[in-house]
Amino acid sequence: MKKKSMRAKAKKTTVGMVDADVLAYTAGDDVRLDAALVEADCLGSAAHAIMLSRIPIKPRLFTRAECRSIQDALRHITESSRQGAFRITVEDQDVHLAIERVLTKKLGVLGKRIHTGRSRNDQVATALRLYGKSQLMDTIKEAADLAAALLDFATRHSDVPMVGRTHLQPAMPGSVGLWAAAFAEGLLEDIVLLINAYELNDQSPLGAAASYGVPLPLDREMTADLLGFSRPCHTVLYAIMARGKMESIILSALAQVMLTLSRLAEDLILFTMPEFNYFKLPAEYCTGSSIMPQKQNPDVLELVRAKTARVLADAHGVCGIMKNMASGYNRDLQETKEPFMKGFDTTRSTLRILRGLLEGLAVNEEALLNGFTPEVYATDWALDLVAGGMPFRDAYDHVKQNLHALEQLDPREVIQKKQSLGATGRLELESLYGRMREALAWTHEEQREFAAVYKRLLGISR
Amino acid sequence: MKKKSMRAKAKKTTVGMVDADVLAYTAGDDVRLDAALVEADCLGSAAHAIMLSRIPIKPRLFTRAECRSIQDALRHITESSRQGAFRITVEDQDVHLAIERVLTKKLGVLGKRIHTGRSRNDQVATALRLYGKSQLMDTIKEAADLAAALLDFATRHSDVPMVGRTHLQPAMPGSVGLWAAAFAEGLLEDIVLLINAYELNDQSPLGAAASYGVPLPLDREMTADLLGFSRPCHTVLYAIMARGKMESIILSALAQVMLTLSRLAEDLILFTMPEFNYFKLPAEYCTGSSIMPQKQNPDVLELVRAKTARVLADAHGVCGIMKNMASGYNRDLQETKEPFMKGFDTTRSTLRILRGLLEGLAVNEEALLNGFTPEVYATDWALDLVAGGMPFRDAYDHVKQNLHALEQLDPREVIQKKQSLGATGRLELESLYGRMREALAWTHEEQREFAAVYKRLLGISR
Amino acid sequence: MKKKSMRAKAKKTTVGMVDADVLAYTAGDDVRLDAALVEADCLGSAAHAIMLSRIPIKPRLFTRAECRSIQDALRHITESSRQGAFRITVEDQDVHLAIERVLTKKLGVLGKRIHTGRSRNDQVATALRLYGKSQLMDTIKEAADLAAALLDFATRHSDVPMVGRTHLQPAMPGSVGLWAAAFAEGLLEDIVLLINAYELNDQSPLGAAASYGVPLPLDREMTADLLGFSRPCHTVLYAIMARGKMESIILSALAQVMLTLSRLAEDLILFTMPEFNYFKLPAEYCTGSSIMPQKQNPDVLELVRAKTARVLADAHGVCGIMKNMASGYNRDLQETKEPFMKGFDTTRSTLRILRGLLEGLAVNEEALLNGFTPEVYATDWALDLVAGGMPFRDAYDHVKQNLHALEQLDPREVIQKKQSLGATGRLELESLYGRMREALAWTHEEQREFAAVYKRLLGISR
Amino acid sequence: MKKKSMRAKAKKTTVGMVDADVLAYTAGDDVRLDAALVEADCLGSAAHAIMLSRIPIKPRLFTRAECRSIQDALRHITESSRQGAFRITVEDQDVHLAIERVLTKKLGVLGKRIHTGRSRNDQVATALRLYGKSQLMDTIKEAADLAAALLDFATRHSDVPMVGRTHLQPAMPGSVGLWAAAFAEGLLEDIVLLINAYELNDQSPLGAAASYGVPLPLDREMTADLLGFSRPCHTVLYAIMARGKMESIILSALAQVMLTLSRLAEDLILFTMPEFNYFKLPAEYCTGSSIMPQKQNPDVLELVRAKTARVLADAHGVCGIMKNMASGYNRDLQETKEPFMKGFDTTRSTLRILRGLLEGLAVNEEALLNGFTPEVYATDWALDLVAGGMPFRDAYDHVKQNLHALEQLDPREVIQKKQSLGATGRLELESLYGRMREALAWTHEEQREFAAVYKRLLGISR
Repeated sequence: MKKKSMRAKAKKTTVGMVDADVLAYTAGDDVRLDAALVEADCLGSAAHAIMLSRIPIKPRLFTRAECRSIQDALRHITESSRQGAFRITVEDQDVHLAIERVLTKKLGVLGKRIHTGRSRNDQVATALRLYGKSQLMDTIKEAADLAAALLDFATRHSDVPMVGRTHLQPAMPGSVGLWAAAFAEGLLEDIVLLINAYELNDQSPLGAAASYGVPLPLDREMTADLLGFSRPCHTVLYAIMARGKMESIILSALAQVMLTLSRLAEDLILFTMPEFNYFKLPAEYCTGSSIMPQKQNPDVLELVRAKTARVLADAHGVCGIMKNMASGYNRDLQETKEPFMKGFDTTRSTLRILRGLLEGLAVNEEALLNGFTPEVYATDWALDLVAGGMPFRDAYDHVKQNLHALEQLDPREVIQKKQSLGATGRLELESLYGRMREALAWTHEEQREFAAVYKRLLGISR
Repeated sequence: MKKKSMRAKAKKTTVGMVDADVLAYTAGDDVRLDAALVEADCLGSAAHAIMLSRIPIKPRLFTRAECRSIQDALRHITESSRQGAFRITVEDQDVHLAIERVLTKKLGVLGKRIHTGRSRNDQVATALRLYGKSQLMDTIKEAADLAAALLDFATRHSDVPMVGRTHLQPAMPGSVGLWAAAFAEGLLEDIVLLINAYELNDQSPLGAAASYGVPLPLDREMTADLLGFSRPCHTVLYAIMARGKMESIILSALAQVMLTLSRLAEDLILFTMPEFNYFKLPAEYCTGSSIMPQKQNPDVLELVRAKTARVLADAHGVCGIMKNMASGYNRDLQETKEPFMKGFDTTRSTLRILRGLLEGLAVNEEALLNGFTPEVYATDWALDLVAGGMPFRDAYDHVKQNLHALEQLDPREVIQKKQSLGATGRLELESLYGRMREALAWTHEEQREFAAVYKRLLGISR
Repeated sequence: MKKKSMRAKAKKTTVGMVDADVLAYTAGDDVRLDAALVEADCLGSAAHAIMLSRIPIKPRLFTRAECRSIQDALRHITESSRQGAFRITVEDQDVHLAIERVLTKKLGVLGKRIHTGRSRNDQVATALRLYGKSQLMDTIKEAADLAAALLDFATRHSDVPMVGRTHLQPAMPGSVGLWAAAFAEGLLEDIVLLINAYELNDQSPLGAAASYGVPLPLDREMTADLLGFSRPCHTVLYAIMARGKMESIILSALAQVMLTLSRLAEDLILFTMPEFNYFKLPAEYCTGSSIMPQKQNPDVLELVRAKTARVLADAHGVCGIMKNMASGYNRDLQETKEPFMKGFDTTRSTLRILRGLLEGLAVNEEALLNGFTPEVYATDWALDLVAGGMPFRDAYDHVKQNLHALEQLDPREVIQKKQSLGATGRLELESLYGRMREALAWTHEEQREFAAVYKRLLGISR
Repeated sequence: MKKKSMRAKAKKTTVGMVDADVLAYTAGDDVRLDAALVEADCLGSAAHAIMLSRIPIKPRLFTRAECRSIQDALRHITESSRQGAFRITVEDQDVHLAIERVLTKKLGVLGKRIHTGRSRNDQVATALRLYGKSQLMDTIKEAADLAAALLDFATRHSDVPMVGRTHLQPAMPGSVGLWAAAFAEGLLEDIVLLINAYELNDQSPLGAAASYGVPLPLDREMTADLLGFSRPCHTVLYAIMARGKMESIILSALAQVMLTLSRLAEDLILFTMPEFNYFKLPAEYCTGSSIMPQKQNPDVLELVRAKTARVLADAHGVCGIMKNMASGYNRDLQETKEPFMKGFDTTRSTLRILRGLLEGLAVNEEALLNGFTPEVYATDWALDLVAGGMPFRDAYDHVKQNLHALEQLDPREVIQKKQSLGATGRLELESLYGRMREALAWTHEEQREFAAVYKRLLGISR
């Protein structure tokens, strides 16, 4: 009787009868998340169809005209998805079978042919790589924009002294310019990581089928070219096993971006406390309290910290999924999709929100100057003694015994005396601007190429 | 000009003007997630109102009749939420201000009074503790149900031999009964963790306000009693600082449940491979392939493994949020909400789906018997020699030199000879059944008490 | 030729020839870490020998006198280990075979019999549970000591006002007493977690052998009793599968302790900055800089934060090891040993060092009073208006419009007005002291019982 | 009295009096770990001294001859460290002050001058970057060696059929060559990650001092050149803040290597089970059981899995340390050192041990052929029908209805028919060999350059 009731609940899918609860458990999230993959899957299907129409199989799987019909139908699906009108049902299980269903309804036998020589395994891997490329381009663009905002901030305030701290204790003279430039440099290094991840991701898994290829003369190089990938993944098995791995590499790079931002957030939370009052957040970026009428809280910055923990955890979780995974496709991989997509959402919205916040951030020069107490000059004094011939360790001991004798100096002058590369008196921001502009140029070039792929395969703009 | 455009985007909330993007960044998820907290927040508000109506402030904050009006309105909100008709808007920010808005619209000045002596900080902490209690009760119930299913499976197959493995290599004679009972025992220990977490969680933060109490004679013991908590958190500051901590403790216990289930899933994936064929999954629990017509894949079990990685990561992520957090409320805590809720969803659906799967799991006794090769009896032979007086290490060496001389035995007899507690010949499952029944009884008792809270405060059943 | 050179490198162990590099890879850490398990393994072996001498096998495996010889030899090993004179070699692989080697050398055939009916799998599981019990007792004791120090600090400074913060911004009046008491309460809850973990751990795996028991009438209840465990693990298979699980549960509890301490450390780092100067660390707890003569840095506290991240990561890493692990013993478990032991070391040394730091912590009442600005009283004013009959939300809006009108009050008076349970005017520390004393009493009781086990089995004190 | 006893315990260090327990807590690990940094620190000190001797300070800080004395003394320290004779004491705190102590003892005032314009903060950052470069070179070399071993294995067995699996269930025909080549490809991608990490790491922090530079005309470009770095970190503040970040980026790449290896280990554990018997591990790589005489266990492979979890956890733990860290040096960073070093140790020993294991791995062709059951050809049949003109989805349905009609084929022929790039019939291993050789060539080039740095600065070979 138990079994019977189960069958009563079973639902028909393209690939077999499945218990309704099981379907919800296995496909539930995909139905929602896959909305973000419609365009990528249409691109992949168009490239696959074109390739099938060109390879030497007699009779041809698709004529040139049939292939165009498929491309038209895929463009239509893309447009309908952009208008929010494309639906994936739980019986579809995912975007791939949903698109096959629509194609088959519209084109009949052509739709039934589209899956020739293809498995959902290589299809989803391809869609995710295209999605990843697109998201990475935009992330890099937004990171470069924030780096630009930080460099502009550093430029505007390059001569404003700010107590340099170590262990959070006042340490040596620093400047607002140095402070902001250091975060810009960190972000520019994160951009290198993002570009490295982009390049590893820029290989086509299409044609790998379930994991082991098919006995058809698929032209994997051709689909790679059509889709704008730099090359195909080499072995068909690795093409599928790299799913999850790519996601974890990309999430790792996103986590580094978030780590940099969490540290910027922490500094801003600290230095906007009234006891410092170095900076003032734009009022529109603060939220109030339901009970305390006076509160203006840095909620955005606190959430940046916490969201960093979550992207980190998701990056780690995806690695956890990959650990010990046997070769060939395994369904575990599906669970890498949500953290992957959320990683992009979180990182990108954080980059954008901090850019706005930074543009409205006010600098309180008076408070910054007040932060300079005589101890901050202790090392400078010791190095003065060194310049007079005293060995450093003796100078250090001398100053330590005579801290009371330290005097207030003009921090504006002091910070100009540090003339090593990248110190307060020689920030050479132009060098960092150069890196930022290179990243932007790279992004524009890739975006242009990706737009060409859309045009070629679906006849629409990205 | 930049600033102006920002202000143009600013939105009015109960607690101040906030930039629209900032509002989306800070409140976005809450608007969706808080739907799960409507009932808990109505309970908390009802208890708070009753307490306010009883404490010795002149004039009373609420008359008895006013208090009843509030309770009625809260019941109404609860009912409308159950019908899916209660809406939280992004301007509300969260469920708490949404309910205050509705109350104020309906009851005017009474609504404006409901937040007296309360902050969203203690309010959300209270709602989450109530939500956690309710979810834990149900989780424990479902875990006990799965333990029961495992014990029933063990009972049905207690005499079916199964090669015991270590390092995945055949090791010594075992049985299906032992195998299933071991997983049941693991789950029963996880239930202890869940109950321990429940007890720590069972303290009321209400009355702590923002983190520092208020200068009103709030009766925190009374609200704790009304809400069915075992006691109030002691200090008002800890009451708020424990948020996030409770979530991480509970997620840790849920992660242990998932770890147990991931190991069960792994065994089932292995032992349903055709090379073993020990078990057969119910067909409705398998899904097919889009390219390979013959496939019946254990997708559910693979997802159990992967979802375990995600609950683990979420548990860790919440700890990451808590690390180094300064005292008093910090907005970082908001990011603990989604992993907390998702942890329950994932664990509970996994418990339920595995119960169904287990009930339909077929055992292939023939394949299990075929798994017994003579080496499996090597240790038994060595211990026979010991019984004959040979020191164990000599017996071990003797058998090792003479592995070729091992003979096939009847595994059904062999497993009966192991008569230590909890070995194949003496499983004493009744003892584990006893623990399972105790857990269920505990659950029923707590559910009964919680139902009484609903009745008392809102006049409806849970 | 390659193979030959390998064989040349192979080393003989009790359990077979193994390549030297492989031996280093597989046994390397154990040889060092197992030094901490010598006593626990001697206890386990003594209990096993006594049980073997009593169970009805003809002829008896050990006479009463033989059993006493074994106990004597084990006491000797324990004593030699306490003097640092017991050596585990890489050929031994681990403490278990090292002890068997010494016993065999000393007692001949008795040594060769000691492993009868036992595997290293249940042997190490037993030793680790005993080690865990012992370490947990001491950890709980040290946590209770720190809770006591926090409560004493709270008592001494219960009337000293301290600005209460939320979002790190000044929020409402608080006190040093409330601040310290909240951390004490957090720690007391962590102690509950430690005790819960202790109780789950307090079950004996001995007699489970490799994972599947043996065909000898081992009395698992007797060894559990002799070793002071509350009961045996029930099934022999779970007894072995619980290894790693126990470690992760205990590490999770230790991680909670560390999280609490990391938050205390963060507050102390912040509030000892000169801009606050609320507290002053004892000079002996600070370290200087190699370049800046004036620096006194809170290194200890920074390390507490970082070590928290590491215990958390180790806790998570052990869970990662357990995920998807097939049933029966797997060697992966060995890698849980180091994080387990290090978790105790780190947590315990942190508890002790913070206790010393806290005892020397100076409170700067003047700086604390200076922190009170009029905005801190905004909520109190709103609640005054409420007391006069204004609805809270109107009072909130009124104060928000008139923040300039807020006046300075005497914070010493204000904090006395908060008379709810656990607020600044009614801390009722005695209740928290009570919990602390209960924890200590529990510890003493368990330590007494454990001392009796030493006496009974090895004839020496713990 | 308490305080007094504390002072009694205080120890004198170069940088102040510190409590003995505090010193153990803060410096304990460094004293041990820093042994691995002696050479890197000598290189850094030599470059610093040379630069100090050349920059235009009057009088010069060091004459050319004095500089040579320092270099001689540093060479001496390096040599003594190679002979295991260099000692770091707990009073030194770390390698940096230990070397300064020896220099001062030997060279008097010259030693006291060596720290001019330098802090331990930039000194340790420099040493760790040099250590990281050196370790990464060797790791990449060893990873390329394992990739070569996998490719050789693939070449030797390229025509040996092996059932391709998805969801661990038999899926489609595959080959041992494809299987091994896929892992080689994965490892080659990991090498790209390692090289990317190397390049980010290849920047000099020297001259950043505490985090804020010094008012001396230090030539940071010169020290970068002398040390063989590709350039200096740009800003002095980022130079210090990048510590920990570099470690986490490198650990992330190491974790990817381990993830690849864990999957190889998992496959080998599965496919050496007697039920498969596809492969046989070299006997020297297996270890036995203490109780079961017949056992030959794949312990090495199980430890690979578990060690992967630990490297992953350590990578994550280091990120956890970095999250929210305020700008400027913080002592938290010290805790990144051990996971960083251990990450290299674990990954490198795993790469080496798997190479040896793979070289001795036997392939059982008969067992592999026996694994082919008719269902494995289901997709091939469907694609045959497609070649005959049937739409794929109809062909799929047809085969699904007629699975019983599937026939056994010769897998050796079948795998040759898959002629897409990277499929069983067209592995084109030369392309992967090419990538491997490029990696090796890169390594050799970098190693050559690093050897030149040793020669130039210390006059000895690497």
